[in-house]
Amino acid sequence: MKAEKKQVLIAGGGFGGLTAARVLGNHSGLEVTIIDRRNHHLFQPLLYQVAMAALSPADIAVPIRSILHGYRNINVLLAEIESIDLKNKKVETNVRAFSYDYLILACGASHSYFGHDDWEELAPGLKSLEEATEIRRRVLLAFEQAEHEESPERQREMLTFIVVGGGPTGVELAGALGEMSRYTLARDFRHINPERTRVLLIEGGPRILPTFDPELSEKAARGLEKLGVTVWTNAMVSRMEPGSVTIGSDVIHARTILWAAGVKPSPLNSALGVKLGPIGRIMVEADLSIPGFPSAFAIGDQANFSHGLPGPLPGIATYAIQEGRHVARNLIREAAGKERLPFVPRDKGIMATIGRAFAIVERGRLKFSGFFAWLAWLIVHIFYLIGFRNRVVVLFQWAWSYVTFRRGARLITNRDWRSIGRQSDVSKAKGRP
Amino acid sequence: MKAEKKQVLIAGGGFGGLTAARVLGNHSGLEVTIIDRRNHHLFQPLLYQVAMAALSPADIAVPIRSILHGYRNINVLLAEIESIDLKNKKVETNVRAFSYDYLILACGASHSYFGHDDWEELAPGLKSLEEATEIRRRVLLAFEQAEHEESPERQREMLTFIVVGGGPTGVELAGALGEMSRYTLARDFRHINPERTRVLLIEGGPRILPTFDPELSEKAARGLEKLGVTVWTNAMVSRMEPGSVTIGSDVIHARTILWAAGVKPSPLNSALGVKLGPIGRIMVEADLSIPGFPSAFAIGDQANFSHGLPGPLPGIATYAIQEGRHVARNLIREAAGKERLPFVPRDKGIMATIGRAFAIVERGRLKFSGFFAWLAWLIVHIFYLIGFRNRVVVLFQWAWSYVTFRRGARLITNRDWRSIGRQSDVSKAKGRP
Repeated sequence: MKAEKKQVLIAGGGFGGLTAARVLGNHSGLEVTIIDRRNHHLFQPLLYQVAMAALSPADIAVPIRSILHGYRNINVLLAEIESIDLKNKKVETNVRAFSYDYLILACGASHSYFGHDDWEELAPGLKSLEEATEIRRRVLLAFEQAEHEESPERQREMLTFIVVGGGPTGVELAGALGEMSRYTLARDFRHINPERTRVLLIEGGPRILPTFDPELSEKAARGLEKLGVTVWTNAMVSRMEPGSVTIGSDVIHARTILWAAGVKPSPLNSALGVKLGPIGRIMVEADLSIPGFPSAFAIGDQANFSHGLPGPLPGIATYAIQEGRHVARNLIREAAGKERLPFVPRDKGIMATIGRAFAIVERGRLKFSGFFAWLAWLIVHIFYLIGFRNRVVVLFQWAWSYVTFRRGARLITNRDWRSIGRQSDVSKAKGRP
Repeated sequence: MKAEKKQVLIAGGGFGGLTAARVLGNHSGLEVTIIDRRNHHLFQPLLYQVAMAALSPADIAVPIRSILHGYRNINVLLAEIESIDLKNKKVETNVRAFSYDYLILACGASHSYFGHDDWEELAPGLKSLEEATEIRRRVLLAFEQAEHEESPERQREMLTFIVVGGGPTGVELAGALGEMSRYTLARDFRHINPERTRVLLIEGGPRILPTFDPELSEKAARGLEKLGVTVWTNAMVSRMEPGSVTIGSDVIHARTILWAAGVKPSPLNSALGVKLGPIGRIMVEADLSIPGFPSAFAIGDQANFSHGLPGPLPGIATYAIQEGRHVARNLIREAAGKERLPFVPRDKGIMATIGRAFAIVERGRLKFSGFFAWLAWLIVHIFYLIGFRNRVVVLFQWAWSYVTFRRGARLITNRDWRSIGRQSDVSKAKGRP
């Protein structure tokens, strides 16, 4: 007699969801469906390199369907979740409805503009490939426009870049901007000196990279300054208009503003009717299940896990992976009639790069910075990238950039695909955006 | 006493314009400005591989500024040409006006929908990176949607792809579609069999690839059929609606239609007030100058050159390169007080690939097809690609695809960069597009 297979629904193909799916793959008692509104798994930690023209989108993104094609018990669906009914164990998507036995919520997070949603158009954030290529377009276009701008004042505005948010993403973006203008673009322009680019990194708190040891924060700040990045701490953006940002009582004129300041979890969370943490993540039990709904779990950036910890786990890839693996293993235990185990996170360390051949690494009491930290960063990122092809291509692009000081993906592509023979962004950009 | 430098204005950074610029580079008596509305030179012959998810945009595109940065007498400007006054030697762009001593028009061509401009939204053509990623999005999305479509009729519509136009682009697109559905996608789907995809190649004339020898056309047609592509010759599209195409008296239901049927030259041509050829290209003298305006030249797809030939030269890269080189050399001769020479085109041959490891090559009386033709195609394309990085990356991607039957750039990216947390194309696609 064969038992009915349990249906596991995984929402989201990021680090957490994909890890859970792989652990559950080929398990005979479980039928898995993984839903994502993208067809690809995105290696978020390198997304800033797409925005900064170092890598191509396909270098860091792999079709979820292709990653999981070897597991016969896994279905992949490109769809958008519309509603979740935890009580009746039902999920509605834009293409069909599902009943589940187990639900793993791994939908990640998006940007928070702290109530200023109108800032999004002015200051794009960095969560998707589309946003990364839009940032790339804006940054490269600013240099191109500065090249033929005759007013020195407007030229300065075009060569001023503001990055809001001093976490790892903001630091990596600002460092790459500094590096690009100093090394990559310096020789390509006739009428401007890209080295005179102003890059401002704005952080609301007293120091950048607050999750790192203060000493490493300081090293990162000095590394940024060497690349020509000005770091402003204790600085809050209070107003944003096309071409200018108000920070405290200062008004800075800048054509390009990038947002790396805050995240907010999926809008699904507030519709669930469950308890949410301070930044809207789902409060979870020790086994990552949602209180009152033992067959539903939340992991990664969507979960607020703090059992046995001084505070909730930060939303980084290593914890999402651990959580995805843990939930999947508990489901396998349960299928075998065993008890679930509580989740015990392991600190795998944190790292950030600051421009060329410089990084900071912190793992427990181990702290180091400089070239070897950068090598460690490099090895870890190549290792966690999915797929042989991507590893080879990314490693080659890095080696090539390192030797030539160039960037391989300096493309300005338009927003509208029907752009031939029509008014392009170049001419629109004559006026302020 | 130093003579005033002559100003050479090159409009367009494609094969012709870029070649002309490189030949003129570092010539002490000439100051060159090259204008393009894109920041990148695009290697058009491989654009279909971007559309078919085999290569990334940056693999076949290089910033014009970066290619030419070594030439001190060359300025690069990202701008759009608004008007050309041949009589007064003036060009207006959206950013500034130019006076020139010499003008080289190398603006290329765009699609012609033969008076049906409303077909563009339904059947994108393949001239720019934006169009290539849009085609990629539509093709991959069609498979994803077919995967969860319950009506067999609508599923068949989703798995029907029509390519209009049996020239090299149409043949290469259709071949790649056949190959992709047979080899790349076959194992990744659970509910559909991508091998059952219908690919229709529609050609108005009596045979595909009419510029090739009839025997090679026939081999190409048989090569396509092996990949599951149905070739319809003497077939004209008379009507196009979302989801269907009327061909003669047949109505075919297809979600995805690609356009590779006709080109029309730059809209600038008709405003010049000069004589144009049958498809609107500028009629040129034996030295490629525009009749009556000896200091203005037209080259590449923008020119209609037929001196000493049975008909006008076709719009292919090798002739654009030869013409760009020839005009530049004539300008250098003229600067040295020598006479201009007439242009004598040399037949470098034509080639086309049909799916995996099969191509046809024709050069003079030499004609061959099959694996070795494909190797020849591969070597020529790697050789003409610009940049070491691109050559290595493309060669690696091809080797990887050849061995694994995969495609490295299977990304569906949305049209709007602000796509996180919003209604995506997935749900819009529920209704007909």
